[in-house]
Amino acid sequence: MAPTYTMAGGKGPNSYSQHSTYQKALLEVAKEKISEAISTKLEINSASNRFNIADFGCSTGPNTFLAVQNIIDAVGQRYRKETQINPDDNIEFQVLFNDHSNNDFNTLFQTLPPTKRYFVAGVPGSFFGRVLPRDSLHVGHCSYSLHWLSQVPKGIADRSSPAWNRDIHCTGFSEEVAEAYLDQFKIDMGSFLKARGEELVSGGLLFLLGSCVPDGVKMSETMKGMLLDHLGNCLNDVAKEGLINQEELNSFNFPIYPAHVAEFKSVIEDNGCFTIEAFEKISHANEEFPLDPEFLATSNRVTFGGVIESRFGKEAMERTNELYEKKCPEILPELAKAKSGMQFFIMLRRN
Amino acid sequence: MAPTYTMAGGKGPNSYSQHSTYQKALLEVAKEKISEAISTKLEINSASNRFNIADFGCSTGPNTFLAVQNIIDAVGQRYRKETQINPDDNIEFQVLFNDHSNNDFNTLFQTLPPTKRYFVAGVPGSFFGRVLPRDSLHVGHCSYSLHWLSQVPKGIADRSSPAWNRDIHCTGFSEEVAEAYLDQFKIDMGSFLKARGEELVSGGLLFLLGSCVPDGVKMSETMKGMLLDHLGNCLNDVAKEGLINQEELNSFNFPIYPAHVAEFKSVIEDNGCFTIEAFEKISHANEEFPLDPEFLATSNRVTFGGVIESRFGKEAMERTNELYEKKCPEILPELAKAKSGMQFFIMLRRN
Repeated sequence: MAPTYTMAGGKGPNSYSQHSTYQKALLEVAKEKISEAISTKLEINSASNRFNIADFGCSTGPNTFLAVQNIIDAVGQRYRKETQINPDDNIEFQVLFNDHSNNDFNTLFQTLPPTKRYFVAGVPGSFFGRVLPRDSLHVGHCSYSLHWLSQVPKGIADRSSPAWNRDIHCTGFSEEVAEAYLDQFKIDMGSFLKARGEELVSGGLLFLLGSCVPDGVKMSETMKGMLLDHLGNCLNDVAKEGLINQEELNSFNFPIYPAHVAEFKSVIEDNGCFTIEAFEKISHANEEFPLDPEFLATSNRVTFGGVIESRFGKEAMERTNELYEKKCPEILPELAKAKSGMQFFIMLRRN
Repeated sequence: MAPTYTMAGGKGPNSYSQHSTYQKALLEVAKEKISEAISTKLEINSASNRFNIADFGCSTGPNTFLAVQNIIDAVGQRYRKETQINPDDNIEFQVLFNDHSNNDFNTLFQTLPPTKRYFVAGVPGSFFGRVLPRDSLHVGHCSYSLHWLSQVPKGIADRSSPAWNRDIHCTGFSEEVAEAYLDQFKIDMGSFLKARGEELVSGGLLFLLGSCVPDGVKMSETMKGMLLDHLGNCLNDVAKEGLINQEELNSFNFPIYPAHVAEFKSVIEDNGCFTIEAFEKISHANEEFPLDPEFLATSNRVTFGGVIESRFGKEAMERTNELYEKKCPEILPELAKAKSGMQFFIMLRRN
């Protein structure tokens, strides 16, 4: 069963493709870092004219097109510097766009940049397993995807388990719940790294970008944690109104876990296939959400609307979003005092 | 602009995925021939553990899954025989599913066989150009797609041209029209072979299956030609009823050309990259359409409904199909006397 938590497809007003400027801002800042990394750390095999780039968790675009173009430009510059040859005449780039098989690949394929100079392949399947042949990839990229888990941690949704979580997420109130989430993150991130380790050629680079939580900070203290708790409260309200079954809601959890920095590093070290070339905090203009109820509600809908709709139906999702926006002003003072989260830029080199 | 003549998407009652048993029957007969060809003609490089297979014009499935599995099974047998090693332990297969970027890849990806043992990539783009990197393909396959042209031949739709075609297709009545279609076929088939020649490794195999016309037979004398003329008559009736603009219909033509055998061979020889290992007539159980108006109308709708709808609108398409079925009995005696077309099996080896 393919999971149901892909981003909203299509090109309409509530689609991911229209609401991903937040993620785009990070890409713009990361561009410089990626260029520099490729120019200093990437080994160019001038005997081979093939160069494969994959974006894991690409969604429907357009951010993925920007991300891969940045990489292609940087590889081209590096190639030209190393060989004095025009890369356009010699290298053939193939870009592998990966996401779940229920991602809207049709939209992705129909909105490809007309000026692209690379071969395109859409690769359906979970990035927690292998999706590409062994030793076939030169540069991998994964942006704002690694906070998604492959499943809700075991026990969390089971009322008889000590890790049972009545809330919709681990925001730090129960130690058992936090541990179950961390265990699942270790399994999933370990699987991700194992698969990429097999797919990447030796010397290949893997760029990971996204959100994590600084060590010493609880998720419930960050804006994203508070917004998840707000969503949980709204879902509870909708359950009280009768549109959602309370028992079903009690066993509902989000399969996401923004890891702490130390947790992330430890999984990479345990995997052993990669050298950590960079693990940095990175800042971008849209880093903290604006304290605007309408913006926050739309952002919530684009990201979580699909999961809620597939579990509780369209009407419940719409009502939840309505309450989310309406009650948002109540939490604005708290949001204003939230501790900072962290946007990370990780660069790994395949040993 | 991506063309609009992909097969009907989705999984519904009028979808290609539900109406492709005709094409499937040919695959079943071809299976034996492909297995034999791979077992005798394919060079196995036992040093490489990667094997790439592409299906050009794959549509939405399920036929494409059958076609590529046949090839994988045959390659596995060949590998085992040559190396005494279990292919499952050693070869990684990657299957590249190619079709226009407006093909319904979402359906393709969501109906992949759960038991498949290969990596999947969807490759959007016209197969008249390059869609894969150089020297990256070991076996290519293309079934029932090469009768589609990249465009309606120039002049055909232009009333001031001597090649102006008032009918919807070249079924053999005008020499200028037939020549314009043949010229376009030569350009397109030449482009197809040039691109595949660059993508296939030396020694790689290309299997082409589909419909052509035996030398000495006119398309208008075959059942497919007669059915196209029938469709043209129905479109004219709908124009008389007012649902289609007559002038627009007069300049409407189908971008398809089932070539004669000698024409096909000549384009392959002119390309020069391939050795023709086989060019055979192949027979299958569903080769001639049953003389059943309902069947013929559904088949027509699945294949041509999309083109007609995109040009003349849904209502005109529905009405055309209604008339097509209703008036079909009138042409059954003629259809019963039609000359046989030809299903071809072509195997090319990259020099």
